[in-house]
Amino acid sequence: MTTSSQISRSFCPVSCALDILGDKWTLLIVRDLVFSGKRYFGDFQNSPEKISTNILSNRLKKLEEGHILLRHRDPANARKVIYMPTEKCLDLVPLIMELVRWGAKYVPGSNVHKNLSQRFEQDPVEFMAEIRQSLYRE
Amino acid sequence: MTTSSQISRSFCPVSCALDILGDKWTLLIVRDLVFSGKRYFGDFQNSPEKISTNILSNRLKKLEEGHILLRHRDPANARKVIYMPTEKCLDLVPLIMELVRWGAKYVPGSNVHKNLSQRFEQDPVEFMAEIRQSLYRE
Repeated sequence: MTTSSQISRSFCPVSCALDILGDKWTLLIVRDLVFSGKRYFGDFQNSPEKISTNILSNRLKKLEEGHILLRHRDPANARKVIYMPTEKCLDLVPLIMELVRWGAKYVPGSNVHKNLSQRFEQDPVEFMAEIRQSLYRE
Repeated sequence: MTTSSQISRSFCPVSCALDILGDKWTLLIVRDLVFSGKRYFGDFQNSPEKISTNILSNRLKKLEEGHILLRHRDPANARKVIYMPTEKCLDLVPLIMELVRWGAKYVPGSNVHKNLSQRFEQDPVEFMAEIRQSLYRE
């Protein structure tokens, strides 16, 4: 990902956000990082959407360059690379919860994750606190 | 847009929503329909992101097939085609406001639309009522 001034199509924040997030895969990786605690390349490949190796490599690189995830050596196994969400990544949770709400409402057959949506809507602050806690527990 | 069962990569509502919305242009058209009251093909082309004719045609067709907009003859000029947002389209406003919030926070140089964000955060119900009112005023 180059700097925003190089890639921005306009100064509109919707457009600027979509310059970074606007594709079919980036927010699925964010979902997996935040909600499923996925940390390794193979973990992301195992998601039901079956992302291809080259798209996954490309998006992980862009997410790292955009400071949405941190990539480092796994302290438990120096031959493995581990990916961790940043604060900028966690701040995408409300956006993802809106995709959950809209998708579940309008796309027949999509699992509702009703419990997840309800918890977020009832108390978004507590919901975020629980997500943070789950990250630190690992 | 084919039916959701034909295109869905998984049953996850995030993935299902991204099957429809996950690109750099679709939500800009929704933004223009809802926030700028754009109604004609040329209006969308005049946005600062300068969408190309073929991408615009493709996305308008998909949005119509997905019941996110209605396409009909302009009552004021039968030779012109007019596009109108549906309820499913208006229900994307909270998602767009999340893009506004995240984009303005993290992408340097993006206009903040602070007033818009504040109004939405303070009273989303009133905010939506105002948007609906602006649609009916036209």
